Amino acid sequence: MDVPTLVEQAREGRPRAVARLISLVEGASPHLREVMAALAPLAGNAYVVGLTGSPGVGKSTSTSALVSAYRRAGKRVGVLAVDPSSPFSGGALLGDRIRMSEHVCDPGVYIRSMATRGHLGGLAWSAPQAIRVLDAAGCEVILVETVGVGQSEVEIASQADTSVVLLAPGMGDGIQAAKAGILEIGDVYVVNKADRDGADATVRELNHMLGLGESRGPGAWRPPIVKTVAARGEGVDEVVEALEKHRAWMAENGVLTARRTARAAHEVETIAVTALRERIADLHGDRRLDALAERIVAGRLDPYAAADELVAGITGSG
Amino acid sequence: MDVPTLVEQAREGRPRAVARLISLVEGASPHLREVMAALAPLAGNAYVVGLTGSPGVGKSTSTSALVSAYRRAGKRVGVLAVDPSSPFSGGALLGDRIRMSEHVCDPGVYIRSMATRGHLGGLAWSAPQAIRVLDAAGCEVILVETVGVGQSEVEIASQADTSVVLLAPGMGDGIQAAKAGILEIGDVYVVNKADRDGADATVRELNHMLGLGESRGPGAWRPPIVKTVAARGEGVDEVVEALEKHRAWMAENGVLTARRTARAAHEVETIAVTALRERIADLHGDRRLDALAERIVAGRLDPYAAADELVAGITGSG
Repeated sequence: MDVPTLVEQAREGRPRAVARLISLVEGASPHLREVMAALAPLAGNAYVVGLTGSPGVGKSTSTSALVSAYRRAGKRVGVLAVDPSSPFSGGALLGDRIRMSEHVCDPGVYIRSMATRGHLGGLAWSAPQAIRVLDAAGCEVILVETVGVGQSEVEIASQADTSVVLLAPGMGDGIQAAKAGILEIGDVYVVNKADRDGADATVRELNHMLGLGESRGPGAWRPPIVKTVAARGEGVDEVVEALEKHRAWMAENGVLTARRTARAAHEVETIAVTALRERIADLHGDRRLDALAERIVAGRLDPYAAADELVAGITGSG
Repeated sequence: MDVPTLVEQAREGRPRAVARLISLVEGASPHLREVMAALAPLAGNAYVVGLTGSPGVGKSTSTSALVSAYRRAGKRVGVLAVDPSSPFSGGALLGDRIRMSEHVCDPGVYIRSMATRGHLGGLAWSAPQAIRVLDAAGCEVILVETVGVGQSEVEIASQADTSVVLLAPGMGDGIQAAKAGILEIGDVYVVNKADRDGADATVRELNHMLGLGESRGPGAWRPPIVKTVAARGEGVDEVVEALEKHRAWMAENGVLTARRTARAAHEVETIAVTALRERIADLHGDRRLDALAERIVAGRLDPYAAADELVAGITGSG
């Protein structure tokens, strides 16, 4: 199937076309550039929300509850579930799939799982591309669910317009994780399982910690803390309300465009480094590289001067 | 002090000049290119021997014994001791320093320790440069001692003209390590502590394993196995003999030049990739990158086309 047809079908909401396009942008497909060029003018309309939290805080349940809330508001929703700890793309998500099952037959919801794989720059590379496909396909809200551990997850969280950090009471490790840096990335905090003992203590502690970092100017965003029982849908409308407030605040203050521009710049850098690295790798066994190496061994050239020649040769010939 | 004077003093065997030059090539010194260019015509004469083995096989003692043997033959010797497991460059080598102490006052021996550090490409990057300095400084034999674990050590071992793999009897893990891949890199095998029980069994087992991989053509190199008691200097002359045989075989068969050419090619690649990556990193906050990112956010450009423009801009303007 040709790319324009695929894009058209994806915009009509056909899940198989969306899946196909994501596969094309994830891998090193020969159609990659054509797909990216076709998507560019269609993307940029979705509101991307990142959900991060330690295992056990109820991330998938919360995601599912948010999907329901946005569907009630008539929005088309995309979900990108990222689990780099799984060796199999879909395997670790069986549990999530069950929790997501109420949405599976809803044509207004597209659910995609993604795990670390070998191609190109890994998740940091493929997640933004998948978000771009969901965006171009007409998803108005995209929920990106990541395990809140490790550098690459923090990077993926930084792909979102708004980052939600989930905690649960009685999980000392949650607060520890928060201390370790998660407090710097949250725009909205959710204390889930708020019917359990210790929920108010968790909120107080979180409030205290957020206050400590307070050196905000007037008009700055103060991350709200929302209590939920996602399994029963309690507090979920309040989360949506907090998200919409943050989105409106970002739009008013130029933050939304600034964040998206910074992300796009980072994405371009990543692609450029990958492309240059590949061009150099392509030279294995090439006469040019061998000839340079021979001159080094003969003492007629030093490795730096040789690298200059190599770079000039690669970039000059395009 | 200017670079030509430093190089001259290093060639006269002054240890401080050698140390200074190694520091210059290890780091991102502004004199790096000048130093590399000055060294190029002087290097290429040293015979580089890699010594690899698990902790406990007597690597430093063996290195020290080899230094003594080469000194008796009137050779100038350089030692590069690499311990990436140490957070401090010199710290882990205190023990080695004591064992090496008999050579410390010998002006014909230069000993340098090196650990993984943050700059540029790490050890894989800085070890070849340090070898180049020792080579240009007139060391006729350079012994590179590495812990035989991990990818970067195998890479450093591949910098050698001849790789010596050390084992000791009664160390099941030694043979296990051998099974795991060390058998592919040895040109000469040494069973040290050969006065201990089990030495002959270790030799037999090693012989068997080397035989298993035997599909060598006529004239191929058959790695010899030498028994030593390095602490008493026993068997060390036989190791030197095996090394000289391997060197002569490589020279006769064009293997020496082929190995050195492949190494130089790899080194040029590493430097080229690092240089390109730095050029892109330099663009942070640059108007060109921002302008591309803004066009992506506006949907007027896709990230791939932007990366192409970025690469063209960097490489075109040099």
